[in-house]
Amino acid sequence: MKLIECVPNFSEGRRQEVMDAIVNSMKESANVIILDVEADPSHNRMVVTMVGEPQQVLSAMKNGARKAVELIDLNQHQGEHPRIGAVDVVPFVPLFNATMQECNELALEFGQWMWDELKVPVYLYAESARMPERKRLPNIRKGEFEGLKEAIKEPERHPDIGEPVIHPTAGATAVGARNFLIAFNLYLNTADKGVADKIAKAVRESSGGLVNIQAKGMFIEEKGLAQVSMNLLDYTKTPLYRITELVKLEARRFGVEVVEGELIGLMPLGAALNSLSYYLQIPKLDANQILDVAVLSRLAESQDDEQQQ
Amino acid sequence: MKLIECVPNFSEGRRQEVMDAIVNSMKESANVIILDVEADPSHNRMVVTMVGEPQQVLSAMKNGARKAVELIDLNQHQGEHPRIGAVDVVPFVPLFNATMQECNELALEFGQWMWDELKVPVYLYAESARMPERKRLPNIRKGEFEGLKEAIKEPERHPDIGEPVIHPTAGATAVGARNFLIAFNLYLNTADKGVADKIAKAVRESSGGLVNIQAKGMFIEEKGLAQVSMNLLDYTKTPLYRITELVKLEARRFGVEVVEGELIGLMPLGAALNSLSYYLQIPKLDANQILDVAVLSRLAESQDDEQQQ
Repeated sequence: MKLIECVPNFSEGRRQEVMDAIVNSMKESANVIILDVEADPSHNRMVVTMVGEPQQVLSAMKNGARKAVELIDLNQHQGEHPRIGAVDVVPFVPLFNATMQECNELALEFGQWMWDELKVPVYLYAESARMPERKRLPNIRKGEFEGLKEAIKEPERHPDIGEPVIHPTAGATAVGARNFLIAFNLYLNTADKGVADKIAKAVRESSGGLVNIQAKGMFIEEKGLAQVSMNLLDYTKTPLYRITELVKLEARRFGVEVVEGELIGLMPLGAALNSLSYYLQIPKLDANQILDVAVLSRLAESQDDEQQQ
Repeated sequence: MKLIECVPNFSEGRRQEVMDAIVNSMKESANVIILDVEADPSHNRMVVTMVGEPQQVLSAMKNGARKAVELIDLNQHQGEHPRIGAVDVVPFVPLFNATMQECNELALEFGQWMWDELKVPVYLYAESARMPERKRLPNIRKGEFEGLKEAIKEPERHPDIGEPVIHPTAGATAVGARNFLIAFNLYLNTADKGVADKIAKAVRESSGGLVNIQAKGMFIEEKGLAQVSMNLLDYTKTPLYRITELVKLEARRFGVEVVEGELIGLMPLGAALNSLSYYLQIPKLDANQILDVAVLSRLAESQDDEQQQ
């Protein structure tokens, strides 16, 4: 069994019937799990977290995109979050037995379909970006839907897939493969947020630390403790253990220690195993060596086979 | 989804048709996965590793036991491995979302069935033992099938379930809940087996180390390195990180270091997570926080539902 995650952002966070129609159309695809739906009225935006086998996810994503393009008119849309399209961003994330390469191929297939079927031009971002400046969404979103109507005609703003003309109501869409993002925090045995700030600055990419790490200092009222709050943008290259040990090392300069780690939400099995393999010095530790996973995976597959017979 | 493992030992390792008949009868139970079948002619014994939901495993185990009692006559059986019954030992092991308590209840249910249906008396061992001396199999197996015919009549050898008389051809059976056994080795940066021996002696239960740990020193020809070779008998109480860090600490006395860890076979997810939670200082880290597992588990369940409709 191969599993990927897809986290489409739709530009609708207020009209419940529109949101329901989009999510329901995605559920029509068998064996796709909708893990989470988050809608925010002030952002006027809905984020759906869906997991399944690549072709199932692709099929669900097409259903959702078709429905969103049908029901959302960006000329009538206002919200705090910047956006260029009714289907604003579609990231494909490798989860289990799937590679970035496969997610990239899926992103290209979906992007081509968006143009061929719906006449929505597509920008490839993140790991699928063809130009370095399109790796990050803010560059693609410059001017938003309203500004992009004209800007898309400029050669440097031409879409990667489709003609340089935006869809009259649905705008354009950013599509790409990216890694799973892990939110991880480390509490310090001090209430001094300044210390957490300094450690965060030392360990993050933007100011001389590890690549793929965003970090900031916080003071957490409930615990009365300062915290280094982090996002890991690519745990396959910059694993949990490395940032954890680096935070401990930097903390020594201030005579403070890490007292607790905190995982926000979920992490992929690969993130757990690549850190554990460091600490136990096992050169390679993968999902096939985890009994429950090997079994669950075979159970799910054998049930797939039965259904296909 | 709840998963347990069952590793029955049958007293037949030579007649292929008998072994096939037993394994095939177990496969009749839907949704049970036979992970491994190991037969040893000199031991004249077959070990089946099976995984599935508790009631499915119980059902497969009943099929296998019924077939083994029908086809194996211990009066005709010879082999190196000590045994008391055609169905010699039946351990139930909690894997995923299952507790030792549930496996214990399953062991009792199966044991009662062995007596009620097949008239095979049952000794409860491991975590299910009602007397401390029955925790370990060698105490239960004393005298083997041949000796037990008479010995079972002595009050201290009475079975825990059934009358004190062994089945004329199938003997008696040891049944119990136990934890998963993890085989884990640590290589040292020395070729001196004596150092590995001394470290093993320091860390194992039998000579002053950690409970639930068996350890011995080895010299591994292929690597030219000494190794501390270990069995973890209860990773829930004595986790991988604790024995790993203790080996490193004892190694310092000899000026040697651990250069590599080696996992033999599989380990349960819980074993990976309870060690990772130590290193990352996350107070509690469980299977629900591992994205792939949460998803696989829901996929398997939703397919279950579909099949039941």
